[in-house]
Amino acid sequence: MKDENWILREEKDGPDLNYIKTHIHKYSKKGSSDNLDILVISSADAANVIPITPEGEVILVEQYRFGTQMTTLEIPGGLINPDELPLDGIKRELSEETGYTSKHWKSIGKLPFNPVYHKNFIHHFIAENVILTDQTNFDFGEEITLKKLPLPQVIHQVKQGQLAHPHTISAFMLAYDYLIGQIP
Amino acid sequence: MKDENWILREEKDGPDLNYIKTHIHKYSKKGSSDNLDILVISSADAANVIPITPEGEVILVEQYRFGTQMTTLEIPGGLINPDELPLDGIKRELSEETGYTSKHWKSIGKLPFNPVYHKNFIHHFIAENVILTDQTNFDFGEEITLKKLPLPQVIHQVKQGQLAHPHTISAFMLAYDYLIGQIP
Repeated sequence: MKDENWILREEKDGPDLNYIKTHIHKYSKKGSSDNLDILVISSADAANVIPITPEGEVILVEQYRFGTQMTTLEIPGGLINPDELPLDGIKRELSEETGYTSKHWKSIGKLPFNPVYHKNFIHHFIAENVILTDQTNFDFGEEITLKKLPLPQVIHQVKQGQLAHPHTISAFMLAYDYLIGQIP
Repeated sequence: MKDENWILREEKDGPDLNYIKTHIHKYSKKGSSDNLDILVISSADAANVIPITPEGEVILVEQYRFGTQMTTLEIPGGLINPDELPLDGIKRELSEETGYTSKHWKSIGKLPFNPVYHKNFIHHFIAENVILTDQTNFDFGEEITLKKLPLPQVIHQVKQGQLAHPHTISAFMLAYDYLIGQIP
């Protein structure tokens, strides 16, 4: 849904970085002569997955994040390649980051990455009966430690803010009722 | 927690925009000569709030977002001023965006804004028994429509991905057990 109140006056490209492009959008408001310079970030869509083993454990990844300069515990995910469907991209990312694969995938929806700054979306998935079949193959810029924790404990930790990434939290929210139904 | 594997080689400032500063951080990995150029965004911390009326309705704001160029439905929130505590900042934002105020505030935790790109954090709150006492006072760049919906319906819509902002979703996740306990 477009908004009639904002007029996009100019688009300038900022630096192209690893994986993302930056843009400055100059807006004015209908009936006003003031301008707003807005940072907009574009990239491929992203995807992430809640991977669950046959024993009901969730595979999590711990990795260094450059914004906060801290290590965070998250679900696996990453950017989709230009030639991939979201499901194919997340199958690849799960294998590369964890070595786990699955034949039981479920799409649980997509959301804006962050509608304030980003043009792109993130696609959320659940993978059940994941098993360790592959060698991990990290991208440059990734250094990942795996954790395997029981689903009820992971849901508790998400509610406590201990999985401190907004897209991990949104995946658990979209999956919430389904996951609760899987706990024996 | 710092990571020993990544060495920050250089920090360059990018453009200063409305409300945010951009930086390019050049990293190399221990034992590698390759570099990564990373976009890092800094700003004040943000805060948002789930405002609930005495009748059990949630006050939501619908506004245009410049990243996706779409209107989204969210809970109220914004950036904290340099001289404010998070609680004072969100009391001000709630009043400015909606005209509602409350004497019953509860902090439900803070999370990284997005640990991949942003240095700052978002502080989440619940405000109960909110009542309409003030005139709204929008910032330049805000154009807000209010919605008032019953709490059970809002929780359902959050799970369906219809409140399409990651920080609205994370507020509901941190508040989840408390909110479910408030539904008669």
